[in-house]
Amino acid sequence: MIIELISIGDELLKGAIVNTNAAFLSRRLRQAGYSVARQTILPDENNALSVGFREALHRADLIVATGGLGPTLDDRTREIVAELFHSDFHLDQAIADQIKRRFGKVSVQIENQATVPSKAKPFPNRIGTAPGLVFSENGKTVILMPGVPKEMEPMFLEDILPWMQRQFPIQDKKESAQLFFCLVHESLVDPHLRTLSQRYPAVEAGIYPAHGTLSVSLHSSDKDQLEAFQKELTQQFNPYLYLAKSGKIEEALQDWFVKHKKTLAFAESCTGGLLSSHVTSVPGASEYFLGSLVVYSNSMKEEILGVSKKTLDSQGAVSEETVQEMLEGVFQRSAADFAIAVSGIAGPTGGTEQKPVGTICAAIGQRGKSPDIGTFQSFGNRQTITLSTTHKLLGALWRKVEKGIPAFPLLP
Amino acid sequence: MIIELISIGDELLKGAIVNTNAAFLSRRLRQAGYSVARQTILPDENNALSVGFREALHRADLIVATGGLGPTLDDRTREIVAELFHSDFHLDQAIADQIKRRFGKVSVQIENQATVPSKAKPFPNRIGTAPGLVFSENGKTVILMPGVPKEMEPMFLEDILPWMQRQFPIQDKKESAQLFFCLVHESLVDPHLRTLSQRYPAVEAGIYPAHGTLSVSLHSSDKDQLEAFQKELTQQFNPYLYLAKSGKIEEALQDWFVKHKKTLAFAESCTGGLLSSHVTSVPGASEYFLGSLVVYSNSMKEEILGVSKKTLDSQGAVSEETVQEMLEGVFQRSAADFAIAVSGIAGPTGGTEQKPVGTICAAIGQRGKSPDIGTFQSFGNRQTITLSTTHKLLGALWRKVEKGIPAFPLLP
Repeated sequence: MIIELISIGDELLKGAIVNTNAAFLSRRLRQAGYSVARQTILPDENNALSVGFREALHRADLIVATGGLGPTLDDRTREIVAELFHSDFHLDQAIADQIKRRFGKVSVQIENQATVPSKAKPFPNRIGTAPGLVFSENGKTVILMPGVPKEMEPMFLEDILPWMQRQFPIQDKKESAQLFFCLVHESLVDPHLRTLSQRYPAVEAGIYPAHGTLSVSLHSSDKDQLEAFQKELTQQFNPYLYLAKSGKIEEALQDWFVKHKKTLAFAESCTGGLLSSHVTSVPGASEYFLGSLVVYSNSMKEEILGVSKKTLDSQGAVSEETVQEMLEGVFQRSAADFAIAVSGIAGPTGGTEQKPVGTICAAIGQRGKSPDIGTFQSFGNRQTITLSTTHKLLGALWRKVEKGIPAFPLLP
Repeated sequence: MIIELISIGDELLKGAIVNTNAAFLSRRLRQAGYSVARQTILPDENNALSVGFREALHRADLIVATGGLGPTLDDRTREIVAELFHSDFHLDQAIADQIKRRFGKVSVQIENQATVPSKAKPFPNRIGTAPGLVFSENGKTVILMPGVPKEMEPMFLEDILPWMQRQFPIQDKKESAQLFFCLVHESLVDPHLRTLSQRYPAVEAGIYPAHGTLSVSLHSSDKDQLEAFQKELTQQFNPYLYLAKSGKIEEALQDWFVKHKKTLAFAESCTGGLLSSHVTSVPGASEYFLGSLVVYSNSMKEEILGVSKKTLDSQGAVSEETVQEMLEGVFQRSAADFAIAVSGIAGPTGGTEQKPVGTICAAIGQRGKSPDIGTFQSFGNRQTITLSTTHKLLGALWRKVEKGIPAFPLLP
């Protein structure tokens, strides 16, 4: 069955809001075994809506549309789709009563909202006033839902999706797997995916890089091929593979630290708190993460972490000597079992011939043991340099504790 | 001119990511005076891409597409569009050299990325490897850009949009203005926008809230009406209005601190380094920002900042007493002229009846002066609570130094 989504609203085409409805519906449909062939965003305008729905009905069997169901003059979806299905309207007393019970007032809006296309099956809106509507004729189905996420989401999950599952049961349920890798470049994994895709043609593979981490999605109706594909890929890239429901390396890191009852602290310069904000973005971080000393200025490197003025003057703030002293400082100033210290040049200014923008020095260590210290290069602008540095360092620490691999060199 | 956007990527149709590219492009195009008639999201699949581009070329004059330009097996956009324009490919040595200069290695990927359609005008990618490509023939134009926002956004703003403005100048050039506000709720500004829109009907106004800050866009072909609208709005909301090219409150803050030669440091608990990473995201932050002591654990609150165990035990880590001691600690441990200390409950767990999830205590002060201390509520999930807390606190500090308004209460 070919499914398309249509989102209606000028605010989407003006960029005033991000289309979270389409992402929500696509994800939930996929989890239920359906796949979405296309998403289209149309304006609140009669002709564009009519053309857009006609085109989509030509390509697809089922259209799931959101938005344009409100009572105001720029909400036109209902009328347009009713016209396509040659449907007239009638007042649905049950809906009118339900709205009156909840909103208490008899108004033009209620009558408007309760006046539904006679050919459509209405679904209740438990939050707002506009009911969901489902048109179905000659093998083509159009589902209309309100555009407000807090109205649409419960309506979809509680009523529309169960109705779909009864009407259009999934025949060929696809298996899927998601694998996450850190500290390996897309260009190293991709050739293997190509080879495996040829060997296991029933498996659909996708690769999604994200500043130092990678995710690979596998889908197949053939469970054996999927498992074989996954097994080979896992073996090939085992040192880089991490497990995390969210896909975030900081979740894998937290799992290790909580499981092993170890604590962690940072001494950050160029990342400016980004390392710390990443690990604390995971609920439960306080179970293992003690804190981060963001010593952006040289004065704070000296005062807070005890980095010597001599080292800063002779080697510079971005040097392996400085990060070593920063690491020693964070072990002294906190009770952490493990720590990362990082200093680098995030740019756009501050680069030199010897140390261009993107030069990063870092020390990763365990209390009482000799630390791993290294220098590497991150690329891009200020934002991508700090972001990929953050992901790389979290990946290097995770790989060190989980797999026993030295932090440096970072990349193979 | 009819413009449509096409976003390519299975991850969008699977709901793995939200389509922020379409919102970004629609907003920026609108600000430049163009309007977007439709957005379409297509899969990384040959036939669907070919059909989708053909249909869009039938309806529109200009297509702005993102995604599917990478060197990996599921990136097919380039080939499909080259075929529609009957273009062959050639190796562009300038692009190959530029990629080699930046990424250092000669690989198959580089050659792949530097092999561009002969009929397309390439645009450099300053962050990643895939160049932008513009096809133009018989009054139809297709612009292809990479799908990674960090690569696409600077390419669009620095190269593609200026190129569009030369090729397709807006005839009826609209004047536009953008105003940024902090610490004022959309529901307070919106009624005034409506009133002003009635008074100045030639002005189109849009309001875009963003976790504690607001931006208002004004567009009009009538310069006088636009200026009058802007002037009245500015007068009405002057205490909240800040100036920043990027729209970021941290830029306005930096401008003030650098101008007044003052320094700043933080003591962060619940924001976990987010405050610090926000101010350091602005180039030049090292001119005034000394650092942040992210004391996530109670032990670090005591050890690093000297918060008393008695206060932590009797009042709790989330209390006005604790943040006051944290503020005193950061003034003691650094040379900063100004500081913010914050502690709160980011959730999802840890809330109580007295202090529900989202309860935030903060102290904002200047060395040697009595600090402003207050408690407020942030809403949403862990991510939105920390983000809006960050924006609110930066706004409160900016409003205090720039306008002399006490930090608390935060909102009118």
